[in-house]
Amino acid sequence: MIRKLTDKIKKTNAPIVVGLDPMLKYIPSHITGKAYEEFGETLEGAAEAIWQFNKEIVDNIYDLVPAVKPQIAMYEQFGIEGLKAFKKTLDYCKEKDLIVIGDIKRGDIGSTSEAYAVGHLGKVAVGGKSYAGFDEDFATVNPYFGTDGIKPFIDVCKQEKKGIFILVKTSNPSSGEFQDRLVDGRPLYEIVGEKVAQWGELHMGDSYSYVGAVVGATYPEMGKALRRIMPKAYILVPGYGAQGGKGADLVDFFNEDGLGAIVNSSRGIIAAYQQGKYAEYGEKCFAEAARAAVEDMRDDIMSALDGRKV
Amino acid sequence: MIRKLTDKIKKTNAPIVVGLDPMLKYIPSHITGKAYEEFGETLEGAAEAIWQFNKEIVDNIYDLVPAVKPQIAMYEQFGIEGLKAFKKTLDYCKEKDLIVIGDIKRGDIGSTSEAYAVGHLGKVAVGGKSYAGFDEDFATVNPYFGTDGIKPFIDVCKQEKKGIFILVKTSNPSSGEFQDRLVDGRPLYEIVGEKVAQWGELHMGDSYSYVGAVVGATYPEMGKALRRIMPKAYILVPGYGAQGGKGADLVDFFNEDGLGAIVNSSRGIIAAYQQGKYAEYGEKCFAEAARAAVEDMRDDIMSALDGRKV
Repeated sequence: MIRKLTDKIKKTNAPIVVGLDPMLKYIPSHITGKAYEEFGETLEGAAEAIWQFNKEIVDNIYDLVPAVKPQIAMYEQFGIEGLKAFKKTLDYCKEKDLIVIGDIKRGDIGSTSEAYAVGHLGKVAVGGKSYAGFDEDFATVNPYFGTDGIKPFIDVCKQEKKGIFILVKTSNPSSGEFQDRLVDGRPLYEIVGEKVAQWGELHMGDSYSYVGAVVGATYPEMGKALRRIMPKAYILVPGYGAQGGKGADLVDFFNEDGLGAIVNSSRGIIAAYQQGKYAEYGEKCFAEAARAAVEDMRDDIMSALDGRKV
Repeated sequence: MIRKLTDKIKKTNAPIVVGLDPMLKYIPSHITGKAYEEFGETLEGAAEAIWQFNKEIVDNIYDLVPAVKPQIAMYEQFGIEGLKAFKKTLDYCKEKDLIVIGDIKRGDIGSTSEAYAVGHLGKVAVGGKSYAGFDEDFATVNPYFGTDGIKPFIDVCKQEKKGIFILVKTSNPSSGEFQDRLVDGRPLYEIVGEKVAQWGELHMGDSYSYVGAVVGATYPEMGKALRRIMPKAYILVPGYGAQGGKGADLVDFFNEDGLGAIVNSSRGIIAAYQQGKYAEYGEKCFAEAARAAVEDMRDDIMSALDGRKV
């Protein structure tokens, strides 16, 4: 799966993941209106609106990007109905041959992490049979528990040839409160990054590990340092666009082979039509606006990377 | 809700929470057999077995304890069907007037933590209406993101008079890899504990805060130090029983008022019939065995606390 990711990145020339994080306020009224007409202003109605919105976005971007990253919280907030829309979305993305990164940020003690790993990346045994509960290709994982909390994910990934991205330095403003604290003179995120590199040795692909890292686009200097600490880890980079990151900030997250990082944008793409720059599309053509935003993001990142090579 | 928790602890004289973490291997064959007969060896079948198992446990312990703590991973591993059993379980526990602590360990950047908070503790707006997705009374939260990731939970808790328990020092063997690292000469878990005390001021009950902490029974010395750092935080203490914690280890997690901590046991109670000590109950009477295990746990903890007062 890590090889599929690098192959698809090379093929699309777009180290981009589209964050499918649909908030109702992003969804055009013709979609919510139709969903509420059918299901009422209910959790089912919200879930239907989310699904129809996602489907149209995916139909318009699947040939441009290697991967999507649905943020499960945006579905989970609508309870069971929302999670059904999450599952439907990820199944549909896989039909379109997109790689699905489940942004679930789970992590717990060993036996519990094992249950999350099985539910999201593996198969659960029921009597003599086994079933995949959610079946993403990759998942994001929280490192706070240490090795016990990570190892069960790696074990399942080895069976399934799947991968994880472990939170190292997150994109949010307060991420430094704990992550930047100095341990033996070095920030905690570097200590976590070193562990990611070690854990990564347990499940290597050809040149990159199945164990990647999350490092926010909003902290480019830290990204540069972490790139060196974890040379074989793919870095999933949130925080581009709406959170403030730009292509020029991102070059040092990549290795010299032009690989090693994949940049996420969520509302900057899926709600592009709500920005001045793409307003001409109007809400009816929200998905074409998303496509244009993907193309602009790709050009921004690739020209920054090309600039580096000169 | 924090007052309801302390009132119920006083009334039951049992600072105990039963962890409803049903793995299929804990469920007696007469229950799985019946569920598989009705739904096949399917995810629905597993979910039905879990629900029936939980219901019988709850029916046998609800008068003895103030609270239950379903671990969502144990349900999520069965996908949507598992999560339906999670929801059914928590609704049933609330009918029985048990306080429900959703052991979800969520946490993310601000807008995403808000979605988790809304989905598990609050209400989500759909058009002109609003709905509770899961509706637990408390939830566990991961602190790795810092204040941005915590504040949305506190905001929702203030609206709903609900609470959270933030991971400080977890019970698992490798929790020290990051949590024990020294920051300015002090372990990270103490730094997190200090933040919990600060965050707790944002949402105080009468004498305890709605913002509590998770500290593992397996680290009693650290519990003692954290008790002092967070005097107004309720401490949720996992790791009793199966993970190795004993009543005598727990006294310093409590304040001198005999309050301030609530101790969780999961498989030590729900799978008590599989232990030599309760084997006489047999698998048919698994729920009576669970009741006996709760009574023994209560006596172990209360006699340790009484011993301290002498």
